[in-house]
Amino acid sequence: MSLSPAAELWPDVHPDAARRLMLAAVESFARRGYHATTTRDIASAAGMSPAALYVHFPSKAALLFAISRSGHEQSLALVADVAATEKHPPRAVRRVVEEFVAWHARRHTVARVVQYELAALPEREYEIVADLRRRIERTVRDVIAAGVDSGHFAVRDVRTAARAVLSLGVDVARWYTDRSRTSPTELGRAYGELVLRMLGAEPTAG
Amino acid sequence: MSLSPAAELWPDVHPDAARRLMLAAVESFARRGYHATTTRDIASAAGMSPAALYVHFPSKAALLFAISRSGHEQSLALVADVAATEKHPPRAVRRVVEEFVAWHARRHTVARVVQYELAALPEREYEIVADLRRRIERTVRDVIAAGVDSGHFAVRDVRTAARAVLSLGVDVARWYTDRSRTSPTELGRAYGELVLRMLGAEPTAG
Repeated sequence: MSLSPAAELWPDVHPDAARRLMLAAVESFARRGYHATTTRDIASAAGMSPAALYVHFPSKAALLFAISRSGHEQSLALVADVAATEKHPPRAVRRVVEEFVAWHARRHTVARVVQYELAALPEREYEIVADLRRRIERTVRDVIAAGVDSGHFAVRDVRTAARAVLSLGVDVARWYTDRSRTSPTELGRAYGELVLRMLGAEPTAG
Repeated sequence: MSLSPAAELWPDVHPDAARRLMLAAVESFARRGYHATTTRDIASAAGMSPAALYVHFPSKAALLFAISRSGHEQSLALVADVAATEKHPPRAVRRVVEEFVAWHARRHTVARVVQYELAALPEREYEIVADLRRRIERTVRDVIAAGVDSGHFAVRDVRTAARAVLSLGVDVARWYTDRSRTSPTELGRAYGELVLRMLGAEPTAG
């Protein structure tokens, strides 16, 4: 039994109607931008009435927040899980990059909304998402700093290096399409090697 | 005598009213997205009537095209100029990265529109911009390939490496703000070193 695209993206969201609305919102926001999309557009793309949408989400901003929070939580879980289980810094960095890059390629439409519509979040919701972003950045900085301490990495400025590592992953969402020649997994592997080098380690170190 | 912000951005565009409209369009598109912005919004942000806008630009799409083409031409000029004058591959890559990154930091609002609103361009205009993008990518690939041939770089896949180099620069437009602690020039320098390492050269090689 295969899951629907919406169920694969948001296994924790219930009922299925809420997930279908989130998927319709992602597609509408990605195509025309948040501000040019109405709740009516989203409801109609999900095959529902505007009234049915409001049963699940009180506003368009609530939908954006659900999409954004979930995307950031997934990114944080992926990065934090590697940091907690892999204590060899080069291997940890390689796995973080492989998974972060592959996620942004595989989920490029969702990731575009997650990464490029932050400014449209209401203030309180923005603060919650900004906190998740700070935790993602801190986790990546800590893994790089651990590699500097262990002598595996040679980095002049850990903050800038962490920013560059995350930037490489995030920007994949901008240019990756279903027609891209490299698969998400292959791209993750190639970027993992580039990043290890960038941090002053040999690709074989990870 | 100091130039107006619009004259600094587009010294080749005349008259000044056309430049002021381009600046108003950049600010509106960056804030609310292309699709949610009307020509009336743009005219009014420039302190002009919609009729006065149409004297200079026949449509909102024509304004986006003028902004996008000019941004891509500036990027291409910067990259092509280094490639034509600096024949030592590590020094060429360092300068390309320094200037490309600094441009995306300094011009982050314009760069956001240039990089993130491609899909809104009409087909014929999109093709012209896509051609400029291909020329930018090809120039960066050629510089990296020259460094592989000269033995300065060790890169498994020149295409992926060039993509990563450009990605690092483009993504600066997403996160850089006027409140960022690192200046555009400093950021360009730091990224230049990271990129040389990523390509398998010592930062001192460039």
